[in-house]
Amino acid sequence: MKKIILLFSLALLASCGNQTKEGLSSSEKHEHQHGHPHSHSTDEHGLAPHTENTIHQYAPTVALLNSIYEGDITPQQMVQQGNIGIGTVNHLAGELVAVDGVVYTIDAEGGIAEAPNDLESPNMTMINFQPKQTVTVENIESYEDLTRELQKYSTSKNSFYAYRIKGEFKYLKMASAHKVENEDVSLFEYLDTRVMYTRENIKGTLVGLFTPDYLGNIVIPGMHFHFLSKDKKIGGHLEDIKFDKLSIEVQEVNQVNLQLPETEKFRNKDLKQGAAPKATAKQNGK
Amino acid sequence: MKKIILLFSLALLASCGNQTKEGLSSSEKHEHQHGHPHSHSTDEHGLAPHTENTIHQYAPTVALLNSIYEGDITPQQMVQQGNIGIGTVNHLAGELVAVDGVVYTIDAEGGIAEAPNDLESPNMTMINFQPKQTVTVENIESYEDLTRELQKYSTSKNSFYAYRIKGEFKYLKMASAHKVENEDVSLFEYLDTRVMYTRENIKGTLVGLFTPDYLGNIVIPGMHFHFLSKDKKIGGHLEDIKFDKLSIEVQEVNQVNLQLPETEKFRNKDLKQGAAPKATAKQNGK
Repeated sequence: MKKIILLFSLALLASCGNQTKEGLSSSEKHEHQHGHPHSHSTDEHGLAPHTENTIHQYAPTVALLNSIYEGDITPQQMVQQGNIGIGTVNHLAGELVAVDGVVYTIDAEGGIAEAPNDLESPNMTMINFQPKQTVTVENIESYEDLTRELQKYSTSKNSFYAYRIKGEFKYLKMASAHKVENEDVSLFEYLDTRVMYTRENIKGTLVGLFTPDYLGNIVIPGMHFHFLSKDKKIGGHLEDIKFDKLSIEVQEVNQVNLQLPETEKFRNKDLKQGAAPKATAKQNGK
Repeated sequence: MKKIILLFSLALLASCGNQTKEGLSSSEKHEHQHGHPHSHSTDEHGLAPHTENTIHQYAPTVALLNSIYEGDITPQQMVQQGNIGIGTVNHLAGELVAVDGVVYTIDAEGGIAEAPNDLESPNMTMINFQPKQTVTVENIESYEDLTRELQKYSTSKNSFYAYRIKGEFKYLKMASAHKVENEDVSLFEYLDTRVMYTRENIKGTLVGLFTPDYLGNIVIPGMHFHFLSKDKKIGGHLEDIKFDKLSIEVQEVNQVNLQLPETEKFRNKDLKQGAAPKATAKQNGK
């Protein structure tokens, strides 16, 4: 049985593999600090510097949901805001993943290239990743398994959590993005047209974050991961996952800096509120 | 005829005075810069420093709408984030207004005091106000008049606009806030219990901002002003306004930095999404 969870995101069609519920286990390597693990008490006045422990979001999700597929942020600007990140290319002509402070493009079938300087993005989420916690997660057989295991380490219902997972994955199902033919196509219609591809026993890095629903107008809500292989040959938006045992680095984040696009399209658009996103489970009995 | 416009905010019961539509006029003193008047091109890489041209929001609006009336930001932290601002005191025991980098409390009937260092707020919006435009607005007979005139200078439908209005006001109707008796009272029920008061021919400063609806989960949506008299004896949340002719300083803002509370109450609350705010007109035939 497969379930497809359609999260309202550029590429958030997270399909979950066979569910083998038995044998799940996970253990913490490092004790989670109690209370406010990454509180804003990192300067003398109790406020975090804005570049630290902050999600930097270029363009609110609601722009994509109103078919605004063009923005004006560049890779050079993105890496100023963080060392890991996920996003997409203008006109949805590919996905983006930032690992170790470098932005890579992911073409429609997963091919990787370093993002050119003149690239622009309509939606990018960057994080200056400084994990304070590493957890070990085992026996993951689906996206749902991963989500459930990670949520065990979320001590706040209303914070962001950023993640980095390095290692060898038994199975990854990914999607990417292809250039929109019609700029007015709805995001949901578009999502159904993407190519999916899989890899087995592949080494690489997953980066991503969890965004609570109440911030879903701003940052794509729910769990959201992009992958980059170790050999930098393949990547994509994570759709499904299996692995035996991996360490996952975790960072709670309690600030978001939203940068609004300054394109005429964004400035002039009547943003429909009804399009506001939220994580929605849509089950297909495959 | 009076209309009461209930905007979904802590104190956003904006009642409008007699409507005399004739004779409205306004003129720009300084030409608005075309296109991107306050673009993020203030550093070499095209990104604004985060302390500039950014709305600093402590706690999302949705927290107030879920009856979270306690936060942990202090006046010392607030003035690090901007020189003007609007907010409220913990347990809604008064309103806050920041003018010229100083935070003042406003008691339930409008009395002013400098905010003590140990004060905490559940919701505060600070702006490092650096206006690039000054406009002259004339013959304002209601809150609606003011809103309509200011919106003439908004060249983006989807940006924030911050305002400062200094001068003598023919008429101001204000409200403040009094400590909640029941911490679980709904914000809407609470708003109906506030005291209103008026002043005529009073000198002082109004500070505030316009927030587009799609950001209403984060910052109180619509127009929102707080007043501080020149003699620092009275202030309040603006409900209605009349003046003959005043200069208004305007700043478009295209970034918002949202700081999440780190109180246990916020971390543990199931935030109801149905409570998400939007500007709603509620007309009373008074």
